[in-house]
Amino acid sequence: MTDAAFYHRRRVMITGGLGFIGSNLAHRLVALGADVLLVDSLIQDYGGNLFNIAGIEDRVTVNVADVRQASTMNHLVQGRDVIFNLAGQVSHIDSMRDPHTDLEINCRSQLTLLEACRHHNPAAKVIYASTRQIYGKPDALPVTERHLVRPTDVNGINKAAGEYYHLVYNNVFGVRACALRLTNVYGPRQLLRHDRQGFIGWFIRLALEDKEIQVFGDGSQVRDFVFVDDAVEAFLAAGATDTVNGEAFNICGEEHLSHRDLVQMLVAIAGRGRYRFVEWPADKKAIDIGSFYADSSLFRARTGWIPSVNLRDGFSRTFDYYRQHLKEYVGEGSV
Amino acid sequence: MTDAAFYHRRRVMITGGLGFIGSNLAHRLVALGADVLLVDSLIQDYGGNLFNIAGIEDRVTVNVADVRQASTMNHLVQGRDVIFNLAGQVSHIDSMRDPHTDLEINCRSQLTLLEACRHHNPAAKVIYASTRQIYGKPDALPVTERHLVRPTDVNGINKAAGEYYHLVYNNVFGVRACALRLTNVYGPRQLLRHDRQGFIGWFIRLALEDKEIQVFGDGSQVRDFVFVDDAVEAFLAAGATDTVNGEAFNICGEEHLSHRDLVQMLVAIAGRGRYRFVEWPADKKAIDIGSFYADSSLFRARTGWIPSVNLRDGFSRTFDYYRQHLKEYVGEGSV
Repeated sequence: MTDAAFYHRRRVMITGGLGFIGSNLAHRLVALGADVLLVDSLIQDYGGNLFNIAGIEDRVTVNVADVRQASTMNHLVQGRDVIFNLAGQVSHIDSMRDPHTDLEINCRSQLTLLEACRHHNPAAKVIYASTRQIYGKPDALPVTERHLVRPTDVNGINKAAGEYYHLVYNNVFGVRACALRLTNVYGPRQLLRHDRQGFIGWFIRLALEDKEIQVFGDGSQVRDFVFVDDAVEAFLAAGATDTVNGEAFNICGEEHLSHRDLVQMLVAIAGRGRYRFVEWPADKKAIDIGSFYADSSLFRARTGWIPSVNLRDGFSRTFDYYRQHLKEYVGEGSV
Repeated sequence: MTDAAFYHRRRVMITGGLGFIGSNLAHRLVALGADVLLVDSLIQDYGGNLFNIAGIEDRVTVNVADVRQASTMNHLVQGRDVIFNLAGQVSHIDSMRDPHTDLEINCRSQLTLLEACRHHNPAAKVIYASTRQIYGKPDALPVTERHLVRPTDVNGINKAAGEYYHLVYNNVFGVRACALRLTNVYGPRQLLRHDRQGFIGWFIRLALEDKEIQVFGDGSQVRDFVFVDDAVEAFLAAGATDTVNGEAFNICGEEHLSHRDLVQMLVAIAGRGRYRFVEWPADKKAIDIGSFYADSSLFRARTGWIPSVNLRDGFSRTFDYYRQHLKEYVGEGSV
């Protein structure tokens, strides 16, 4: 892959740039010599965290703004070669409690960004962070991009719409865009403050704090996992080629683990924590999808991307990071 | 089918009730003895037309309101057994010009209606008018419900999201709902004032006014067509059974015609008008999907519904209607 040279002095923008994946992407792009603009709303509980750019704060530009704000986006997109579009509300649970806010952030803001590109920077290339959630409960495993989109919650619906907008703007208005459907991404700089953004970060926190991890049902549901550095490489690969324009791709890990095996591995690597099987809470059961793992051979064929960090290494590096910085992710000051 | 008895004294509500399909549904429901509430915003150019309820105006309740208005919808849904949810912005072209308005009407309003049911009438049954547009350019014909959802314009995306909301509210919150993916519906009471809501109404108007119909390309693109009375029967069938809850169904016609054959038939039946093949306008070509016809055997299996009006009869009845009432659909007073 020639991504390294491609990004040298490249003018990039990352929406959700202070969040989990966005900030890891920022670290990598700074190392590659890119000109990096981070846009983040820093909305409480969403995942943006200024500590995430510790060490690179003097080498990136931070613009606190809400992607729903058209006038702001019209300005910020100008002159940017590649836009990594990662801003979003990512809690399934919150989306069912307050569907209109999820709509605003995951649908309206995507249209706002794309309209900004259409009218103010049509040469931009946009990489959208989509999610495996849009597939819902799979008909068969592994899930390919040929699987029906059938979301089981409002967040999944709005993410699907956000993805479709990108593909339509590519096909109709020539704003080059593609979507990456991420499965379960884990690693440093993830929000650990609450449990409404998925289970991995929460399990990691509980293990580190030597608390009990509750596994729903018998823990037999299987997932695949992507270490954040591998997800970052997927974004970089997508941003550096036009072979992906107008399409959506699965970005997933090679190892599949049941929740049961996952928590055993976490507790073993952390050397702390314990787990217990508990009954499914009704609200979570209603939007559960059973086992899920995906196939990312389409994206590999287009870009050569391949995940390189195995689960054991990935979780070790994750625990090392949080052991050192846990207070920045769970304390009062963290968001 | 036992729909007739089912709807006697049934309290129904129709959003978009002064529009094309909504008003035809209202006429039928009045004949069946239902208690009919019509909700319509009467937004200029969208299709709502008070003339559409001529003859039944004293037997229905009309409430002019916008489905985006939560407080209004919270009130109106109460006590309604069946809600036929047909309100929408239906122009592909408008959705590309002003995507945010399309989002407001086709996404936000659906959430607003469903939230109103969830909190104020969870026993309601909701039938959502979806569209074949959500499939985009078909991989194979006829298109079944197993075909990927892959919209080619913003309107198609927002309609897809609207549909998914209904299915999620059925599955998660128990608000019984389903979606009918209509292909090309034609017949009396359709908007004829402009050409931005699809070609059939516009072709009918041009033929009646003895003008030239412009057919894009060589006119080889095939469509299926549903007479509005058959579409109405599909809504009634869906509203009267719980076998359709939580699913989306194609509602299509049995006859497929190329645009070329269609305009020949229209001109022959009307005894007026003429046609000419012209080059595709770039903006329309960009969102064209080639030939499309669907398979509605899934809905037939669930409900016994079968379209009963052939194209020749359907278009004859359509022309008879507009010959008598054309000024209500094209004049200054029409909307």
